Amino acid sequence: MKMILNPPRDRWQQIIQRPQFRQDNLEETVTEVFNAVKEKGNQALIDYTLLFDNKKMNSLAVSRSEIENSANRIPEKLKKAINLAKANIQHFHKAQKADKKRIETTSGVVCWQESRPIEKIGFYIPGGNAPLFSTVLMLGIPAIIAGCSNIVMCTPPGKNGKIPPEILYAASLLNINNIFAVGGIQAIAAMTYGTESIPGVYKIFGPGNQYVTAAKQMALRLGVAIDLPAGPSELMVLAGKPAYPAFIAADLLSQAEHGPDSQIVCIAGHKSLLIAVEQELKTQLTALPEPIRAVAAKALSNSMLIRLGLKQDRMDFINAYAPEHLIITDKNASFYIKNLLNAGSVFIGNYTPESAGDYASGTNHTLPTNGYARSYSGLNLDAFIKKITFQKISKQGLANIGPAVEIMARAEGLPAHSNAVRIRLNGF
Amino acid sequence: MKMILNPPRDRWQQIIQRPQFRQDNLEETVTEVFNAVKEKGNQALIDYTLLFDNKKMNSLAVSRSEIENSANRIPEKLKKAINLAKANIQHFHKAQKADKKRIETTSGVVCWQESRPIEKIGFYIPGGNAPLFSTVLMLGIPAIIAGCSNIVMCTPPGKNGKIPPEILYAASLLNINNIFAVGGIQAIAAMTYGTESIPGVYKIFGPGNQYVTAAKQMALRLGVAIDLPAGPSELMVLAGKPAYPAFIAADLLSQAEHGPDSQIVCIAGHKSLLIAVEQELKTQLTALPEPIRAVAAKALSNSMLIRLGLKQDRMDFINAYAPEHLIITDKNASFYIKNLLNAGSVFIGNYTPESAGDYASGTNHTLPTNGYARSYSGLNLDAFIKKITFQKISKQGLANIGPAVEIMARAEGLPAHSNAVRIRLNGF
Repeated sequence: MKMILNPPRDRWQQIIQRPQFRQDNLEETVTEVFNAVKEKGNQALIDYTLLFDNKKMNSLAVSRSEIENSANRIPEKLKKAINLAKANIQHFHKAQKADKKRIETTSGVVCWQESRPIEKIGFYIPGGNAPLFSTVLMLGIPAIIAGCSNIVMCTPPGKNGKIPPEILYAASLLNINNIFAVGGIQAIAAMTYGTESIPGVYKIFGPGNQYVTAAKQMALRLGVAIDLPAGPSELMVLAGKPAYPAFIAADLLSQAEHGPDSQIVCIAGHKSLLIAVEQELKTQLTALPEPIRAVAAKALSNSMLIRLGLKQDRMDFINAYAPEHLIITDKNASFYIKNLLNAGSVFIGNYTPESAGDYASGTNHTLPTNGYARSYSGLNLDAFIKKITFQKISKQGLANIGPAVEIMARAEGLPAHSNAVRIRLNGF
Repeated sequence: MKMILNPPRDRWQQIIQRPQFRQDNLEETVTEVFNAVKEKGNQALIDYTLLFDNKKMNSLAVSRSEIENSANRIPEKLKKAINLAKANIQHFHKAQKADKKRIETTSGVVCWQESRPIEKIGFYIPGGNAPLFSTVLMLGIPAIIAGCSNIVMCTPPGKNGKIPPEILYAASLLNINNIFAVGGIQAIAAMTYGTESIPGVYKIFGPGNQYVTAAKQMALRLGVAIDLPAGPSELMVLAGKPAYPAFIAADLLSQAEHGPDSQIVCIAGHKSLLIAVEQELKTQLTALPEPIRAVAAKALSNSMLIRLGLKQDRMDFINAYAPEHLIITDKNASFYIKNLLNAGSVFIGNYTPESAGDYASGTNHTLPTNGYARSYSGLNLDAFIKKITFQKISKQGLANIGPAVEIMARAEGLPAHSNAVRIRLNGF
């Protein structure tokens, strides 16, 4: 771990830089796969699944019976845990529904917003060593609350070409039945163009590796919306009194195990606390099983322990970094909450580990990384809806605002805009 | 105008296609300008302003005195009109502020969202034949309500290298003082990278021609957020009884005058109404002054009058098209409002011309075109803020949800996530 003591402000810009992604060399592959999927549809998906995933698939769609049987294939305790998480995520996201407010801006001029679900959406659930069923909950629950009715889910085939039952179980809880065993660039291309089996969608959600990320950028250029630009996951801990180095080290390691490119930063006012955290990290790291230990060790080698003696400096550095996850253990948390500008999700106090938010506190775990918290929100109900504006103007209302419209339209060189008012008010 | 009678559903996909943009041939120019601005800063801006706009600029920043003097250079009537528009837009956008709701998802687990303004934003206000000061209001008012404090505005120099006083006046009403006389690709590049004079920003807002649109796509790839993907403006009118062909024709022409690529569609249940609208269009078109008349005539040549005899077909066609602006004159507007899924902004009744929403009803005129209303909202307060999630868990709260977190984390192959809970609950 790098220990950085009192870095001057002119070094901050360099310190907060995340490693650059090299997306350029992916472009060619992404373009090739997208073109093949556009031309050959399902056959291209089957071909690339053999090429990239080394899985020979006869069909991509997961059968209804396989989805329904998933409940019998996972432990009762895990089902109960998933149900608790589901309830909390539902509770929190339901509260994000906005009331419809009708506003009479001028007498006779009534304006309002109404929310509508995005009709067709697609989820990408990554594969890999473990089934990321929590992501199904984090994408699916707000989508269902928003009213999205056409949901497609793609996830790479696992062992034996099958999708893990945990993922299918989480999907079944949300009545998501349109599931396909296809991953990578080809899955994103399928949801972009549509194939004989997989419907094209208007917006694609979900995390993924650099191939999936590059493919989502391509989808965006082709007119399909995406949830968030992606990057490796991040955790910043602001360690202030009362701080328990063992807790902080456990949180930092929970981030480090995500991958060797995980970004981890611990900030404190006192060097002694940072040294204690570092010591705990060493101890706890050795207790982790391989291969997780090696992954976490690699992530820690890029991570930073930073001393900033002044409270305001700590605050400004957090805002400059814009962390995806921020833990605040300081008893003066309210100062930091009040002045916080840029972060994805915040965990307050010594009993709020980041992993609680990953699964079950109720907040969403799909969050802006790589400094994008400066301009993007984490996933919430807004991501699944559009807000349409409405206005209804009475004849008297138009008489009230019409003359202003006419004057402004003519000043902008748009006489027909003015005429559309005048023709209605003539003789009124 | 094309009259299309009862198109079968299998032709809809073709009918709703907007003309393709050719962005490919712009890429090279955009890349070149971005690289030059990154390397040479202000000097590149001055060079490209001479090359593209044929204006020799010594300085780009607009002086405070020029901004303040703008009020003396425009008619009192226009100032009053702008003030009325400002009040209505403020009224409507202020109502979009969300209350903070604290949710206890499980006993001892409290979660909430807080909104924060995007710290640094940039506005692009197009130049051209007329000063589009209304766009300053539509971008600036929600930004100020959201609390955005660092606003940069770029707009191409007009006659004599000066920015029109109407634009400066609108900006001065909102205390936007960081204004630069630079337009086109180079302006977007400047707000992306920052130069000696122009600060880099986190998000860029505002309309523009195909060069500006391509430049905003480049900014997006470089990590700067943008408001909306852009395309030519659109109006769809659903003409139902009571319908006044003269009003409808005036609305269609107000859209047609925006540019030769404006998209205009009128839908009705009866051919006779479409014929009456067409006749009115011819009459009103001849009354428009040149060069507006030629522009509108060109736009009309691409536009469509469509008869669909069934109410449900009309509804489904509107949703398939996903218009930027939708006027509904039908007395049964509530059916269409209820079933509407995709549109930017909706104008209800015979006294609600689209031009009212462009200027003064209070709704925003920055809206999704080109079918993007299927997945994007028009500009509203959300576009200027991020919603940060917070959670605070008590020791008992962690005991309540911790076991579920541990089970789920282990099932996802993330033991350190489980440890972060266990270490806090040991001995509890």
